[in-house]
Parts: sequence; structure tokens; C-alpha cells
Amino acid sequence: MPCQRPANQPIFLGVVGDSAAGKSTLAGGIADILGRDRVAVLQADDYHRHSRAERRQLCLTPLAPEANHLDILEQHLCLLRRGQSVLKPVYDHTTGTLRPPERLEAKPFVIVEGLLPYHSRGMRDCFDVKVFVEPDESLRTAWKLARDCAQRGYSLDEAKDSMTRRAADAAAHIQPQRSFADIVLRFAPSADDNGHLNARHLLRPTLAHPDLGPVLDAGGKGGFHLALARDSDGKPVDMLDISGRIEPRRAKAVEDLLWSLIPEASHLRAPLGRFTDTDGQEAISHALALSQLLITYHLVKAASSLSPR
Amino acid sequence: MPCQRPANQPIFLGVVGDSAAGKSTLAGGIADILGRDRVAVLQADDYHRHSRAERRQLCLTPLAPEANHLDILEQHLCLLRRGQSVLKPVYDHTTGTLRPPERLEAKPFVIVEGLLPYHSRGMRDCFDVKVFVEPDESLRTAWKLARDCAQRGYSLDEAKDSMTRRAADAAAHIQPQRSFADIVLRFAPSADDNGHLNARHLLRPTLAHPDLGPVLDAGGKGGFHLALARDSDGKPVDMLDISGRIEPRRAKAVEDLLWSLIPEASHLRAPLGRFTDTDGQEAISHALALSQLLITYHLVKAASSLSPR
Repeated sequence: MPCQRPANQPIFLGVVGDSAAGKSTLAGGIADILGRDRVAVLQADDYHRHSRAERRQLCLTPLAPEANHLDILEQHLCLLRRGQSVLKPVYDHTTGTLRPPERLEAKPFVIVEGLLPYHSRGMRDCFDVKVFVEPDESLRTAWKLARDCAQRGYSLDEAKDSMTRRAADAAAHIQPQRSFADIVLRFAPSADDNGHLNARHLLRPTLAHPDLGPVLDAGGKGGFHLALARDSDGKPVDMLDISGRIEPRRAKAVEDLLWSLIPEASHLRAPLGRFTDTDGQEAISHALALSQLLITYHLVKAASSLSPR
Repeated sequence: MPCQRPANQPIFLGVVGDSAAGKSTLAGGIADILGRDRVAVLQADDYHRHSRAERRQLCLTPLAPEANHLDILEQHLCLLRRGQSVLKPVYDHTTGTLRPPERLEAKPFVIVEGLLPYHSRGMRDCFDVKVFVEPDESLRTAWKLARDCAQRGYSLDEAKDSMTRRAADAAAHIQPQRSFADIVLRFAPSADDNGHLNARHLLRPTLAHPDLGPVLDAGGKGGFHLALARDSDGKPVDMLDISGRIEPRRAKAVEDLLWSLIPEASHLRAPLGRFTDTDGQEAISHALALSQLLITYHLVKAASSLSPR
């Protein structure tokens, strides 16, 4: 079924990556910027085919394509793209069980976060902006253990065991999706490990990235740096590094520049970069804030290009 | 969304009518003739929006359009018609609760039975053959009380109370769908109340009905009679009466005629007309058998007209 798209239909953002890669934090911040009432967030985990107990019996991880209703996910993306509501399945992470379905109404923006939304051509074709998140593995491990134990009822041993069992499926099914992303986003601890995470954006030429010239630092000391580089696959990319220690004044300058490039969205300005740290405290990260804003830039631009002139 | 239809896509039969009108018995027999592996049966009750307890709180009956996800039902009919699978909601009649969704794969024939499938133009347009069942009210009352108490955990008083509460919604929402049917099927006790039900088919000119000339009885004594009549709305219809006491030899002749008119389906010949009587016993009715076969005739013809020549 081709995904036809009338004008003014939803703009689709994908946030894809391995489990506990920070997808929800990134997506949630972007939804906050755009305004929650204008954003439908679809979690692809809801399309798991089995309960946690069934997966264990079948020796399947949720990262395996066959452990998910991916054809139905693709169908629902196409329907939402045409502005239709869907009755989506519900997977309850706290209990690991399937629940009765719930309605999801189409909104001007749809954010799809999950493990496998770039798995098929049909799904990939639904997105306006495709982000792949791959934090430093030490970070992801810490995030995953903390979350699985605190929110999903796993013991520490179970959570570690689950990560081991998932590694092969992650390499086989999650990682290959990286090549389809417009932006690959990597958070990593800073060299002096001061708790502030650095953000690195690989900017592929599949999107028209904003001209950041006026706010870049030439020497690389200001914390906001762009360089030509080769990706791990050997292909040329722009590599944008945002330091966790970026000076607040420079962060503000970058933020102002990005907002000035999307004047149609200036009414949306709001505090950015909120996250919950590993102690469960609310905190702010400039690197996260600017990452969220850079992605939002593309969504607003895509929406503007659809609007009647 | 227009329901486009490629060749060889499913043939759709609708079996619509009030609760306990005999929809499942009719539909099940037709699915048996066509072969269960070639038929997807979709029960529109699965699209109830609320559990039984929620409906009670909201003072809604399941017959109210707003008590159902009718837009999603329409969407799923369109998807099945294009040959796609759907993840359909599940309503558990034994407990009156919503359950996790289940896949329904498209098959060459799709039978949709329920209370409201002719409610919208979009749904009506999905059907090749639209049947409306309206048994004599005394029969329906007996069937409903028997079923609700035996299978759905109602007490007799609750079941009676439920029928009373539903009457207004039935008149407002179920009955008006009658006018969209190609065939209105009415079962009624025979005059001498010998336990055999008579079947009356109102045959609207919206379908090309088979030429039954060779097997009709002229005087009306043989139990298989066609007459020109006015429907309750004043419009002209063919009225086919099949007596519950039809002679087995004549029933066999009608059956042979109908099979001869659909030679492409002659391999499907099987015992017809099975039902469960009010004592819970398996029984056979010639009137039911011929009704099922008359409807099957239209489905097979519709499928033939789609096949590549």
C-alpha cells in the first residue's frame, strides 16, 4: 500500500535505537517543545507480539522482528500519515503483558520511538526525519540496568541476563537500521567524567541541515564544533560535537540562532534539555537541549513546507 | 479513504441484525460450506468500546453507535478488502470485558456479523452481499434469554432487563439498517408450531438472484414459493417462502438446482442447515440449509466474476 500524503498531514519523526538508549527522553523533550497537544507519540514496543513470559518460552527477545507485529506497525504508520486514528495494541512494560488496545488519534506531529521502526522500506518511507540514537555502551548499560530494575520489576541479575541474550539480536536487527538515519545521535561521558554528557550528531546529507556557521567555534574550545569526517562505514558525514561543558552563553547563542531560523515556531520557546539523572533527580543538559532543538528545527521546516502558501 | 479493490481480493458478506437474531448460526453454516480455511469471520461486537461494567456506568447499550469503534471497524474492513491483515480488538462475551487484540488474516471470503456494520456508507460499500436477519420477535426473545443466561453469565432478570433497555437503541440504530440489505431473512414458527421454522427471504433487486423457476411450487403447497409482494416500506420485492415442512425431495431438488448454478463450487457440497436447538441438541433444518445455500450462491458468483478469465 503506498503511503499517499495530502498536504497538512502529520510530520513523522522516528527515534530508533537499542533498548535504554535514551529514546523516550529525547522524544519527550521534542514533544514538549512542539506542544503535547499537537504531538502523538507512538511507542513501537506496543507492537510486541508476545508477553514477557511467552517470549521466554519461545526463546525470543523483543528485538527479533518476528517478535513484533511489524506489518501492523507499518499499516498504522500509513493510516496515521493519512490522518486516520488507529486502535493500537498496548504492551505493559511494568508487568510484561499485553493489554486491551487503545485509540491513538493523528496529530500534526507523530513521534515514533522504538527498536525496529526502520526495519522495512514501507515504514522508513513514512518518516520525514529519521534519528538513530546510539549512546556510549557504558551509558546504555547503566541506564538499562537502572530502568529495568526500578520500573520493570527485573532483579539485577535478570536485567544483566536480558542484556546478554539481546546482544546478538541487537547486532543483527537494531544496528543495521543506523544506516537509514538522517541523524545519528551519540551521547558519551566527557573526558573528565564530570557528569555532563557530550552529544555527537552525525549529519547525513539526506536532510538540509541548518547553517550553523555563525555560532560554530573554530578552535574547538567553545564546545560547539562541526567537522568533516568519515563515518564508521567509510562514508563522508558532517560531525557536530556539542560538549557537555559548552559555555551557557554559547549554548544560548546556538539556541537563539536555531529559533531565528524557524520564526514560524518562535511561540514554542520553552526550557529545554530536561532529563532524569541516575539518582532520579530532574536536571538540565545543554547538549541534550540543543540536540532536541536541532531535530525540532527539521520537523518545523517540514511542516512549513507542507502548509498552504 | 476510498476502498479500492484489486481483482481476487476478498468477497465480503454482511450478516447484520439485532442481538440473538441467529447471525452466528447463519454465518457459521455459510463458512462451513465455503470451507473454514478460506473464510475469515469478523464479529463486529469485538469493536465494542467499553466493558459491560463501563457501559452500565455510562448508561449505554452496545447497540449505540458511540459505544463502538465504528470508524476503526470501517478502517479494518477497508484493509481486509485490500488483502491486508488487521490486529483487531477482542471483546469477551463470557466476561463482558475487553481483551488484548488478535490478528485476523484476510481470506478469499470475509463474513462480517454484527449489530451495526451497515451503519455508515463507508462500511456498506465494503460488502458484496448484505443480509439483514430479523427473526420473529418471539423467537429472538427465546434465543436471547437462553444464550445470555447459558453462555454470558446473566441471570434471567438481568437478561430481560437488558432486552428492555436495548429496545429503543434497536429501533433507532439496528432497524434502519434493514433498508440497505440485499436480502432480508426472517425465521418464524410455522402455523402449527411443530418446531420447524419457516424462512422468508425478501429479495431486493440490488442483487441478481438465481432463476428458481424450475423448483418453485405453483400452488404454495410444496413449501418453496416465490411471490411478488410489497415490503413493509411499500417497495416491491420478491418474497421467497421456504416452509419448515418442505418435503425433503423438494428441498433436495432446490439444493441440486442451486449447486448446478454454481458449478465452480460443486466440490464444496456438504451437509447443510445444522443448528443447535433450544434444548442444546444438534439438529438440521431444510429451511436454514436452503437459506445458507442461497446466500452462498451470491458469494461464489461474486468471486467468479472477479477471477481472471
